[in-house]
Amino acid sequence: MTLLSRSAHGVYAIVPTPFEPDGEVDLDSLGRLIDFYQARGVDGLTVLGQMGEAPRLTELESAEIIRYVIRQTDLPVVVGVSAPGFGSMRTLANEAMSRGAAGVMVAPPATLRTDDQIVGYYMQAAEMLGSDVPIVLQDYPLTFSVVMSVPVLCRIARDVPSVVMLKHEDWPGLEKISALREAEANGEIPRLSILCGNGGLFLDFEQRRGADGAMTGYCFPELLVDVVRLGRQKNFAEMHDVFDAHLPLIRYEQQPGTGLAVRKYVLQRRGLLATDVQRAPGRSLGAAERVEIDLLLERLARRDRRAHLL
Amino acid sequence: MTLLSRSAHGVYAIVPTPFEPDGEVDLDSLGRLIDFYQARGVDGLTVLGQMGEAPRLTELESAEIIRYVIRQTDLPVVVGVSAPGFGSMRTLANEAMSRGAAGVMVAPPATLRTDDQIVGYYMQAAEMLGSDVPIVLQDYPLTFSVVMSVPVLCRIARDVPSVVMLKHEDWPGLEKISALREAEANGEIPRLSILCGNGGLFLDFEQRRGADGAMTGYCFPELLVDVVRLGRQKNFAEMHDVFDAHLPLIRYEQQPGTGLAVRKYVLQRRGLLATDVQRAPGRSLGAAERVEIDLLLERLARRDRRAHLL
Amino acid sequence: MTLLSRSAHGVYAIVPTPFEPDGEVDLDSLGRLIDFYQARGVDGLTVLGQMGEAPRLTELESAEIIRYVIRQTDLPVVVGVSAPGFGSMRTLANEAMSRGAAGVMVAPPATLRTDDQIVGYYMQAAEMLGSDVPIVLQDYPLTFSVVMSVPVLCRIARDVPSVVMLKHEDWPGLEKISALREAEANGEIPRLSILCGNGGLFLDFEQRRGADGAMTGYCFPELLVDVVRLGRQKNFAEMHDVFDAHLPLIRYEQQPGTGLAVRKYVLQRRGLLATDVQRAPGRSLGAAERVEIDLLLERLARRDRRAHLL
Amino acid sequence: MTLLSRSAHGVYAIVPTPFEPDGEVDLDSLGRLIDFYQARGVDGLTVLGQMGEAPRLTELESAEIIRYVIRQTDLPVVVGVSAPGFGSMRTLANEAMSRGAAGVMVAPPATLRTDDQIVGYYMQAAEMLGSDVPIVLQDYPLTFSVVMSVPVLCRIARDVPSVVMLKHEDWPGLEKISALREAEANGEIPRLSILCGNGGLFLDFEQRRGADGAMTGYCFPELLVDVVRLGRQKNFAEMHDVFDAHLPLIRYEQQPGTGLAVRKYVLQRRGLLATDVQRAPGRSLGAAERVEIDLLLERLARRDRRAHLL
Repeated sequence: MTLLSRSAHGVYAIVPTPFEPDGEVDLDSLGRLIDFYQARGVDGLTVLGQMGEAPRLTELESAEIIRYVIRQTDLPVVVGVSAPGFGSMRTLANEAMSRGAAGVMVAPPATLRTDDQIVGYYMQAAEMLGSDVPIVLQDYPLTFSVVMSVPVLCRIARDVPSVVMLKHEDWPGLEKISALREAEANGEIPRLSILCGNGGLFLDFEQRRGADGAMTGYCFPELLVDVVRLGRQKNFAEMHDVFDAHLPLIRYEQQPGTGLAVRKYVLQRRGLLATDVQRAPGRSLGAAERVEIDLLLERLARRDRRAHLL
Repeated sequence: MTLLSRSAHGVYAIVPTPFEPDGEVDLDSLGRLIDFYQARGVDGLTVLGQMGEAPRLTELESAEIIRYVIRQTDLPVVVGVSAPGFGSMRTLANEAMSRGAAGVMVAPPATLRTDDQIVGYYMQAAEMLGSDVPIVLQDYPLTFSVVMSVPVLCRIARDVPSVVMLKHEDWPGLEKISALREAEANGEIPRLSILCGNGGLFLDFEQRRGADGAMTGYCFPELLVDVVRLGRQKNFAEMHDVFDAHLPLIRYEQQPGTGLAVRKYVLQRRGLLATDVQRAPGRSLGAAERVEIDLLLERLARRDRRAHLL
Repeated sequence: MTLLSRSAHGVYAIVPTPFEPDGEVDLDSLGRLIDFYQARGVDGLTVLGQMGEAPRLTELESAEIIRYVIRQTDLPVVVGVSAPGFGSMRTLANEAMSRGAAGVMVAPPATLRTDDQIVGYYMQAAEMLGSDVPIVLQDYPLTFSVVMSVPVLCRIARDVPSVVMLKHEDWPGLEKISALREAEANGEIPRLSILCGNGGLFLDFEQRRGADGAMTGYCFPELLVDVVRLGRQKNFAEMHDVFDAHLPLIRYEQQPGTGLAVRKYVLQRRGLLATDVQRAPGRSLGAAERVEIDLLLERLARRDRRAHLL
Repeated sequence: MTLLSRSAHGVYAIVPTPFEPDGEVDLDSLGRLIDFYQARGVDGLTVLGQMGEAPRLTELESAEIIRYVIRQTDLPVVVGVSAPGFGSMRTLANEAMSRGAAGVMVAPPATLRTDDQIVGYYMQAAEMLGSDVPIVLQDYPLTFSVVMSVPVLCRIARDVPSVVMLKHEDWPGLEKISALREAEANGEIPRLSILCGNGGLFLDFEQRRGADGAMTGYCFPELLVDVVRLGRQKNFAEMHDVFDAHLPLIRYEQQPGTGLAVRKYVLQRRGLLATDVQRAPGRSLGAAERVEIDLLLERLARRDRRAHLL
């Protein structure tokens, strides 16, 4: 299967993990989700990320999901393998790559603070995983409490060849994209593919700053596909129009600790998930929140008909 | 002068502190700002908050600003008096209240963690300030790293009579407003005035959940006034329409560490501030950021003519 | 096999996980360690804690260690099952209890902040594990960033019957022991067994405050056994004498991030571990550190002959 | 008056701020303290540090203490000027230097994370204070949550000429001292004076690693003077003996959040402070803690007669 490269672009959908009401993994819903993402034109899938509730799965369940997803799709699949230690990370990465994954995603452990600690961690991870395994570096300070400066990212880009992609979700983060692209233009660092996360909250300007696309799980992947396509066509006026229509809901979905519940609720309303169950310790939506999301969907449907749900 | 009460409502504008190019406090611009906020129909002013760069001022400068603002306006003025120790807090609060402030705002020190620590802190602060000084409690975990649960806020509402207002900027925070209003309806706690901050990012739904208004510094206070007025009139459809038009800019302004620079830049473009200078250690905008804000203003002006700047 | 109870006392040795030079688990050394702890008179063993490098093991390796240790000893064995999600926690706990473990140890995830969040987490964990599985609650703010107040511990003691033991390693923590014992004496809470960790740095006074013993991995478990025995005999003068002789080394071993390397080095010098290897990302000692530890051992041997290593 | 230099060495006593029972600054006790430190042979004094409760003082009180202390002594005086913003820092530093202080001490704000942020902060501070004002950099991650790597300290040593001294209180920190001394020996950085804090918990080995002395407030400054003198004479055996005798009390005093209460209690028992009052929000000792400290003093007095208090 194709491996991730530094020129990867487009939309990689973060796939949530569906559960039965009793908490078991729901492969039927997972299958529907994969078909849906493909039909909406995404360029790749990412499984077992934070929003895939990876930390709530056993190693056996994770392996099962990897096998199932890769069998169901021809899209490149990125597998989240973040773990507190390298033992589990390697086990999971071996499983993923041997089944045909396109690469693995590694978030930094929360204990990292200094520049050297961060660079050293990715060097160790790359060595442990093997130089032929493409790595997506996840830069998400709000969730992981690790702040990566531009110089740190440049050092990693230079010194860790298997890190080929940045999942960019720093906040604020626009200047960081420009700085990395400038370092690349100046020949200081090799190119990194930059796909943006953070729920898509700044995807409009991120495209203008030079990002290659999105890697996030917003409940309307078709919007992400539109924005990235229009951005690549430099049709910015239309890009902002379609983006702004979705911003009220994007903003609502991006609330930390609540976002996944919103996402699962909408994907259920869209007929893809059988339930919006999360594994403990997760939260479900209150009645008022469901009313608010319904209102946001209704208002959105006036500007984007694809949001018209029965 | 009138003191803050538990029934306070409307829009309290967070006033930024204007500086000359050399970093001196710029009272001329401050005067223009105050006139502007009054003309736009706000119900009160808040000075010396985080966004007023209070920690970057000396005690003498803070006292000067308090005196100047209170002299220039008949609106109720809330004065931020947060300080690592009670010595400075009391000095500043005495200055504020003796000059005619309506109340003081107190943020929690970052060292507080447990419920008892938080409640204890506000009890001590209230005792030290004197029971006749109305206190605004600032609940802003993203900035202060102190997480206040609903039970903690209920204990404070019950046990610290001088805490009359909550500056609500938890994120997510909608369920918290509902829970507090429910506790109040059940007779479990006395009423708190709830004014919402967090840059206004959720002001639309906050109004529907029972907030009394806004206390934030978004660069178009007229939008805050509109949303709060329409919300109080239960004209929710129009409220969402005017709010959504501003959301792309609100979202941009709300970026942590960048927001104040955005705000000062727009207020400068609106002719109110002579410069957008922040005191060190602050940041100024890059060229690309200014272009992005100009674009957001231009797009906004199509939907809200007040955003049309020359 | 006997289950942990609220009256448990004595010394539970935290067992490090030995590794071969290539990073594989070294069961031979593990066997020697278990024999050694038994011969030194400890009352129980704790495996797969932080200092057992549990987060660096795969689920299969963890299961293997559980089986091996329980087979090798008749002492009660506590198994660390902390995990980011309840999926892995339950899998590991089932393995442990079905093999004959005495109970499981659960550390709080770093995201918990408010009193309700902490109590809620242990309620959920207890429900998920089953009410017949004794739980050791690990209260270690320095490592886990979760601060548990006395009221929180009292609520858990009251409301979560299967939490029978507190691994106490708050710092400072002496007043907390007294407060818990007072609540117990007043009939406010059921008894908790309190075993102290934190490398033993305050074990002398902890015994006087009412702790039931130690659960830590200091490289001379015989010292822990002495201190706890003398404390229970109320022979405090001798207790302080033997403790103070070890304090220079205890202090050195208790350095965060370095302590495990010190511990493994001394256990290697004592002939128990074949190597002092840690799994990545771990650190090994520098030459100067080894010299310092050798000096501390030499000085210690003048006051406690058991520290005389060849 | 003499300014701090890169060759400074010896013991700088951290002076606590004495208060009257009603919380007013107690200059009489402060005078006694200064005489006491001088009589015990310290080489300098540090006022308005964390343990001097600086954040609990108003700017006027701080200025009064600076003037009082400098008038009372011929020893070099270092003044803590850490503040959230540069406005207060400059005001306080001007007051200090114009009155004859030897230098100022600057702790990093807790928001700093990346290497560049830390270096940038000290560059800005140095520029703002003026290049003729010697700066002591305080490296204390446990309290300030800022982790400074060796490369960061080397960059500051090279690029910020007015930073002449490191108050070293990282934990673990021994390897850091060696690394800095090695960089200096290799000509990579100019010399820094390194005085150690952290309550003195590792002062024995810090001296062997190349530190220049101590800057801390342990309640027996005579012990600090002994250890530093014996260390400089390379009389290490005796150094360890005198240090180890004090270690049980040092360990007790070094508890975060409790240490200052211990220190003030002992200084009161030594007849120097009229009270052990701290300003709110501070804590005072419980009865059991006082008994424990008395016991530690009694046991210490058997090995060091200077600890024999009536």
